[in-house]
Amino acid sequence: MKQSKTFIPTMRENPSDIEMRSHQLLLRAGYIRQNANGVYTYLTLAQRVFRKIEAIIRQEMEAIEGIEISLPALQSSSILKETERWDSYGKEMFHVADRQTNQLALSSSDEEAIIDLLRDEVRSYKKLPLTIFQIKTKFRDEIKPRAGLLHSREFIRKDAYSFHSTEESLDEKYLEVMQAYTNMLTRLGMHFRMVISDGGTGSHEFIALTENGEDRIAYSDSSSYAANMEFAEVHVDYETPKEKQLEMIKISTPNQRTIEDLASFLSVNPERIIKSLVYKVDNDFVMVVCRGDHCVNEYKLKRFLNVKHMELATGQQIEELLGCHTGSIGPVKLPIGVRVYADHAVKAMVNVVAGANIDDYHLLNVNPERDFAIDDYVDIRFVQEGDASPDGMGTIKFTEGIGVGHLRKLGTIFSEQMKGTFLNEHGRTKPFIMGSYSLGISRLLATIAEQFNDEKGLKWPKHLAPFDIHMITMNVKDEVQTQLADELYAVLESYRYDVLYDDRAERAGVKFADADLIGLPVRIIIGKRANEGIVEVMYRHSGESIDWQKEEVLEKLQSFFSAD
Amino acid sequence: MKQSKTFIPTMRENPSDIEMRSHQLLLRAGYIRQNANGVYTYLTLAQRVFRKIEAIIRQEMEAIEGIEISLPALQSSSILKETERWDSYGKEMFHVADRQTNQLALSSSDEEAIIDLLRDEVRSYKKLPLTIFQIKTKFRDEIKPRAGLLHSREFIRKDAYSFHSTEESLDEKYLEVMQAYTNMLTRLGMHFRMVISDGGTGSHEFIALTENGEDRIAYSDSSSYAANMEFAEVHVDYETPKEKQLEMIKISTPNQRTIEDLASFLSVNPERIIKSLVYKVDNDFVMVVCRGDHCVNEYKLKRFLNVKHMELATGQQIEELLGCHTGSIGPVKLPIGVRVYADHAVKAMVNVVAGANIDDYHLLNVNPERDFAIDDYVDIRFVQEGDASPDGMGTIKFTEGIGVGHLRKLGTIFSEQMKGTFLNEHGRTKPFIMGSYSLGISRLLATIAEQFNDEKGLKWPKHLAPFDIHMITMNVKDEVQTQLADELYAVLESYRYDVLYDDRAERAGVKFADADLIGLPVRIIIGKRANEGIVEVMYRHSGESIDWQKEEVLEKLQSFFSAD
Repeated sequence: MKQSKTFIPTMRENPSDIEMRSHQLLLRAGYIRQNANGVYTYLTLAQRVFRKIEAIIRQEMEAIEGIEISLPALQSSSILKETERWDSYGKEMFHVADRQTNQLALSSSDEEAIIDLLRDEVRSYKKLPLTIFQIKTKFRDEIKPRAGLLHSREFIRKDAYSFHSTEESLDEKYLEVMQAYTNMLTRLGMHFRMVISDGGTGSHEFIALTENGEDRIAYSDSSSYAANMEFAEVHVDYETPKEKQLEMIKISTPNQRTIEDLASFLSVNPERIIKSLVYKVDNDFVMVVCRGDHCVNEYKLKRFLNVKHMELATGQQIEELLGCHTGSIGPVKLPIGVRVYADHAVKAMVNVVAGANIDDYHLLNVNPERDFAIDDYVDIRFVQEGDASPDGMGTIKFTEGIGVGHLRKLGTIFSEQMKGTFLNEHGRTKPFIMGSYSLGISRLLATIAEQFNDEKGLKWPKHLAPFDIHMITMNVKDEVQTQLADELYAVLESYRYDVLYDDRAERAGVKFADADLIGLPVRIIIGKRANEGIVEVMYRHSGESIDWQKEEVLEKLQSFFSAD
Repeated sequence: MKQSKTFIPTMRENPSDIEMRSHQLLLRAGYIRQNANGVYTYLTLAQRVFRKIEAIIRQEMEAIEGIEISLPALQSSSILKETERWDSYGKEMFHVADRQTNQLALSSSDEEAIIDLLRDEVRSYKKLPLTIFQIKTKFRDEIKPRAGLLHSREFIRKDAYSFHSTEESLDEKYLEVMQAYTNMLTRLGMHFRMVISDGGTGSHEFIALTENGEDRIAYSDSSSYAANMEFAEVHVDYETPKEKQLEMIKISTPNQRTIEDLASFLSVNPERIIKSLVYKVDNDFVMVVCRGDHCVNEYKLKRFLNVKHMELATGQQIEELLGCHTGSIGPVKLPIGVRVYADHAVKAMVNVVAGANIDDYHLLNVNPERDFAIDDYVDIRFVQEGDASPDGMGTIKFTEGIGVGHLRKLGTIFSEQMKGTFLNEHGRTKPFIMGSYSLGISRLLATIAEQFNDEKGLKWPKHLAPFDIHMITMNVKDEVQTQLADELYAVLESYRYDVLYDDRAERAGVKFADADLIGLPVRIIIGKRANEGIVEVMYRHSGESIDWQKEEVLEKLQSFFSAD
């Protein structure tokens, strides 16, 4: 493609108000433009990357017997009402006014549509399992569109749904999809981790590791274990100190209301202070205690309590319940009926500090189980860096990233609601057992850009770059240069390289700056030594620069592109 | 692809209420399903055809320097208000409710979006011409969605827009696009005609010829000339009969109000009767006359008069103007101020019949120009079969078809409205000169299905078929058959044939009926003679059936698929 004949609008300056590096670069390098808040145009460079991403996705999905279809963007309310998502989506869903019924929405997810399709057509277990996928534009009216393609209101996603007659069949497909996703992201050249994203084994996310991500993940430094922060389990063997239990003493702690204040006031380590929190759960109050240096993970707590509504008790509620301020509460001598749940670490605490349930007083030498009852020990805290990995291999580290894919065992939730059923081998009507598997494609574009750039611009992995080679004539008025460039361009194209040929009558500096921004893996510069048949080659990733004789170009390119 | 593992839901019976053949077959053969009124899901077979169509479109558009981008589906009102289409689209446009402004619509056309993109980025004639294309889902709230994919509310279209600094550059690109479209449709294997679809040279349609089409076209039997009926010019040399002009006579013609009645009452050929029509044009009345066997083409009339509003005068208006009923009007002795326009054929009429402007009276021996004045002779009638072709080659025939592509010289209409300008070589600000070029992709699927079928099902052209080969095991319980089929399947896949392998435990009759419906070009049946290494091959197009030795399968397939 001759650059003079295409449309790659680059920008010299960083657009204002845009913080995310990938967003800046995709705009500056002419990959995308914004049309409206959270709505983007993909320009030709982005289209070329999408084509490559999509080809990889199709191959890997087809390798696990994925069947590609295309459901419409317009969704009818009737199916969304069957799962009550017509209402529960709320303002995230775009409603569409049509001339007939005003009962259409723009698709943000297709569980309903896919069940509606299959429930009429797949009536026997013999036709299962089926894995259906599509690559589609999706719509979600984000309350605050941001970070360019990461939180846009119109985006491209691969989604897939699998249908099974048995749990085992779902489990098997789930593992296949995991492998397919691993293959895809590996082929895309990404740095990523598959992380656990629920308490069980029914949900995993693929997180692209980035310096500034939206997701924090905990991973083992010595195994494949990784989980979203809120889901990372804590499996630590706490050692109980061999101390003699001492007598509990009440002491005055005026105005010491936080763990930090108290630790410094009493000169004790926060590890020796019990952190107490009261939650209102339905109509009851529950006290949750953990070590002072730990943080309660409300996701875990909520799952453990298995309740819909749970919130931290207000100052007033605590005052009414315990007769003191929040800063002085503790698990000793609670009113009858207040359950106490303790993190496992509490079991190993001896002679520690806790609130006295009297304003400005704390207790010393508190010993769990001796001084207060514990209804249950539960994994209730956030994992910390340095904790042992739950799989017993290595220790936990933290990193940040961006979620690009999500695998979920849906089970029969949707199929029961929608009466999506089949006859099993005994002739009984059963709901489809389902899995869902999404992968953000426009998100991948942004994420890869986030992973592969430097201060000058983008640096595409070679299998994904919009073109293989950026060929630049230093001076288009120089006939020798132009002739060599034209000749080389023809040869490279005939060898099926995708070449972006910068034949523009611009200064060399402008051309190099654009090439840095665009970020193709190999740059061939045809300059002053064209008369000797010598071109300069630069690798974008390494920055390495070498002179090649024109005769050796093909061979050297082949060795570069065929290497892993 | 093993048929047992994919999703091709065929139907034995024709769905009720569906008239169009292609629509019936695409449903029955499991290519599409309807989700809502005018909204369809494309199943895997359709997706495979789309991939092939799209690859051809991309190649041909890129060959004429088309640049692929992707504009969003969500369009902001601000740009649509610049061209006033936010209002003028009316109910054809889907409005989208969003949480902020309620000022979004779903794209049905992208003139505004593309100008909005380029007006900020292309400021000099040096960056022109540019041809931008995209393959996108589009939305139009048809008042009456019908004929399956032909008039759906959500559809796939390739659209393209070209931008130029001179008319010559637009003309050149327009011809290139014409050639590209001709190449595409030829490669798709379609029967089509490019037809003139306006009075000048600024609009052409590509019409797929079908038995029952929505469009009627006139074409030359001996040249490439073709036009939409309403735009087909009439260039006929009428011979003036060598008769002496006779004296005009008024005669009674009681209740003879149509040309047919009158011709039979007077025993004259309709060619010898003047057909007179009165139109109300703004605040004036105009009489239009043509030969009794011709039909006035109101499109041509309206273009000639160059007016916005024009309608046939009512009976009452005619009574007030001429004092008689519609059936007795004629051009002789009209009130002052009523202009008369005559079709060219009228010039050659001698001693003919016309209405007398008196109820139940006509005039005989009327001679134009002697008996009434003619303001202008104009090409004002519909072309007829048997007329000479306007290009002087051959005679006109009629046929029907379905419009699949539309080329238009937009000129500066939109760019002036939207201030889409560039600086020309003299430094003057000029509006972009534009062309637009659409091609309906979901429409093509339906149209090709309409052109290639028989009573049993679809018959895909081989370059477009969703799979190359349908391989069928007659009896999957027969180990010899299954083994040969598995073996052949592996070999064919390794030779990069796309094979649909019917390994289902269905009766052979069911499998054959499905295969007929689906319509792949080559069928390989593995049946009783598997033990001799013999398979039966059937060509879907010719219906020809031959036995092949398994060893010769590859060679024979290659010669079939490499032939034109």
